[in-house]
Amino acid sequence: MRPFHRLLLTSLFIAGASIAAAQDATTVQIPAFVLPESNQLSEEARAVLARMEEARAPDLKGDIKRQREFYGRYNDDRLAEMRRSFATREERTTLGGVPVHIVTPGVGPSRANAARVLINVHGGAFMWGSGSGALVEAIPLAATMGVKVVTVDYRLAPEHRYPAASQDVTAVYRALLKTYRPENVGIYGCSAGGVITAQSVAWIRREGLPRPGAIATLCGTGAPYSGDSIILSGPLGGNAPTVSGPLPDVLPTSYMSGVAASDGAAYPLLSETETAAFPPTLMLAGGRDFAASALTLAHRRLAAAHVRSELYLFDGLPHAFFVWPDMPESHEAYRVIANFFDRHLGKRKR
Amino acid sequence: MRPFHRLLLTSLFIAGASIAAAQDATTVQIPAFVLPESNQLSEEARAVLARMEEARAPDLKGDIKRQREFYGRYNDDRLAEMRRSFATREERTTLGGVPVHIVTPGVGPSRANAARVLINVHGGAFMWGSGSGALVEAIPLAATMGVKVVTVDYRLAPEHRYPAASQDVTAVYRALLKTYRPENVGIYGCSAGGVITAQSVAWIRREGLPRPGAIATLCGTGAPYSGDSIILSGPLGGNAPTVSGPLPDVLPTSYMSGVAASDGAAYPLLSETETAAFPPTLMLAGGRDFAASALTLAHRRLAAAHVRSELYLFDGLPHAFFVWPDMPESHEAYRVIANFFDRHLGKRKR
Repeated sequence: MRPFHRLLLTSLFIAGASIAAAQDATTVQIPAFVLPESNQLSEEARAVLARMEEARAPDLKGDIKRQREFYGRYNDDRLAEMRRSFATREERTTLGGVPVHIVTPGVGPSRANAARVLINVHGGAFMWGSGSGALVEAIPLAATMGVKVVTVDYRLAPEHRYPAASQDVTAVYRALLKTYRPENVGIYGCSAGGVITAQSVAWIRREGLPRPGAIATLCGTGAPYSGDSIILSGPLGGNAPTVSGPLPDVLPTSYMSGVAASDGAAYPLLSETETAAFPPTLMLAGGRDFAASALTLAHRRLAAAHVRSELYLFDGLPHAFFVWPDMPESHEAYRVIANFFDRHLGKRKR
Repeated sequence: MRPFHRLLLTSLFIAGASIAAAQDATTVQIPAFVLPESNQLSEEARAVLARMEEARAPDLKGDIKRQREFYGRYNDDRLAEMRRSFATREERTTLGGVPVHIVTPGVGPSRANAARVLINVHGGAFMWGSGSGALVEAIPLAATMGVKVVTVDYRLAPEHRYPAASQDVTAVYRALLKTYRPENVGIYGCSAGGVITAQSVAWIRREGLPRPGAIATLCGTGAPYSGDSIILSGPLGGNAPTVSGPLPDVLPTSYMSGVAASDGAAYPLLSETETAAFPPTLMLAGGRDFAASALTLAHRRLAAAHVRSELYLFDGLPHAFFVWPDMPESHEAYRVIANFFDRHLGKRKR
């Protein structure tokens, strides 16, 4: 046993081991140091982390046209990887007047999932991600679970603002209720799509529709950013902290501009009433995701309201890691999501 | 909206936002920066964090006598706080030849919990924590859940080594099975007690006894340390990283000295067979706990084995935070643990 192992002995396991004072009793001066990759990662994940670094966005200076072009190509690349990993069929159509892609397993939905459907709400900063970005999220779930996935081409910011996406998701959900029982419908989304998924639950309730059977808010949820992860995400990327001063009490994006934190349909996990009305909810993110802390708090709030909620963190991985299918951690995430919906969605035919 | 909120817009929400290169593609050079307290914390928690800092251990240079004296006084202080928060009764006795404290709610166990019992396995680096440390863990659960708690005065290191504590917990469990159905017995522990709780599940199986109804491994579990949290815990305390070089593949403590990671009863969450045999398991820690990443991985392993598992992280709080009762976060943790056992333990009389 090397000497540093002995050192651990006195510094760990100790009840109340606490946080050093710097500016004041509860502020910590973090020294410069080198953070290795998490030793929990697979070899494949380490290779993907290096590829993520190569694919990192240049400074696009908030130019929405260039951002959409860049992320369009980025998502096209991920889509090519998904198509190599999974065999699915796609259909472009409209549901409830909203454009959608319907993704089905190449062999068709499994018999157990014949009466079930998932709605995907793609990510992309509320401003991009339709098309290839949406397919990147729909394909692995359709294939892993063996279920039909409808991914919603909702209206984007900055041309549109809240609650445009909630309305579009709700219109698709309403159309699906002609064919599916509400308890057989799941909704999931990543990043901005995780936020819109949670918001849509509240919007569906506002519209007087029955709630869906279960939802998954991945890498983002119906609450403002909070906690350590949003502060640490800058330095974990080798940059200065992203945020200085107090965190905003709303989501800092043009899509949510002018909407107060007290709006329960916009920030349902800040509202006791909306939170208590949630269906079973899955929270999942990378351990280095800026949204991780917001998910841990949302999970606690749901548990306190006696809503079935589950939380999974994948150590050492960044925001939206599972759009990269070439590592076992992503496939594990697809299975976690599929198993969650399998346990919580109804099966009975209409 | 202040300018930095705008900045967030482009740096967040972006699929694949990744990690900067430093030494190599997957190593990050973290700059020095000031980490504020988590904005998720209550006012009371901020005050407790300052008190934790004042109560921090001096450099005891691995002197076991002085460490036991220091943590004895530390636990006495926490016990005084627990007695102010909760009304319970205590009895010192032996069960299965092992000394224990039996803690009961002042008003007696609730009618629903009359046929249930919890076993507590106290923390304290495998080397201290009996007496006041054990009561600090038993009292809040006895009072919050309204249930009898038996806290085990197991044999300590360095005088004793693995599997002494597993044997002592199993002896107490075996004695309780004369009165209680196994599915009505829960086992929980914090830090070293979380490790021993997980180890005891495997030891109970090895002894051919039926498994307990549910367990909670808090701030520690039946696996080596791993992931980002064990690396970050040093800097989050204002110190250099605790660990340099590769992490050890075993727990670096004299109690586990000479025991291989391949020993399934010692490291059950590294063993597929032992993991699949686990009862429903709760994992809970502070978000700044050095053990947080190990818990997130153990939770994923249990889920992959289709064992019911739940994970809760309390952002911004350190190792074993809930031994400090003077903050609502600690009471929330007691309720999470109590609710978990209430949902998973049997109720039927023997």
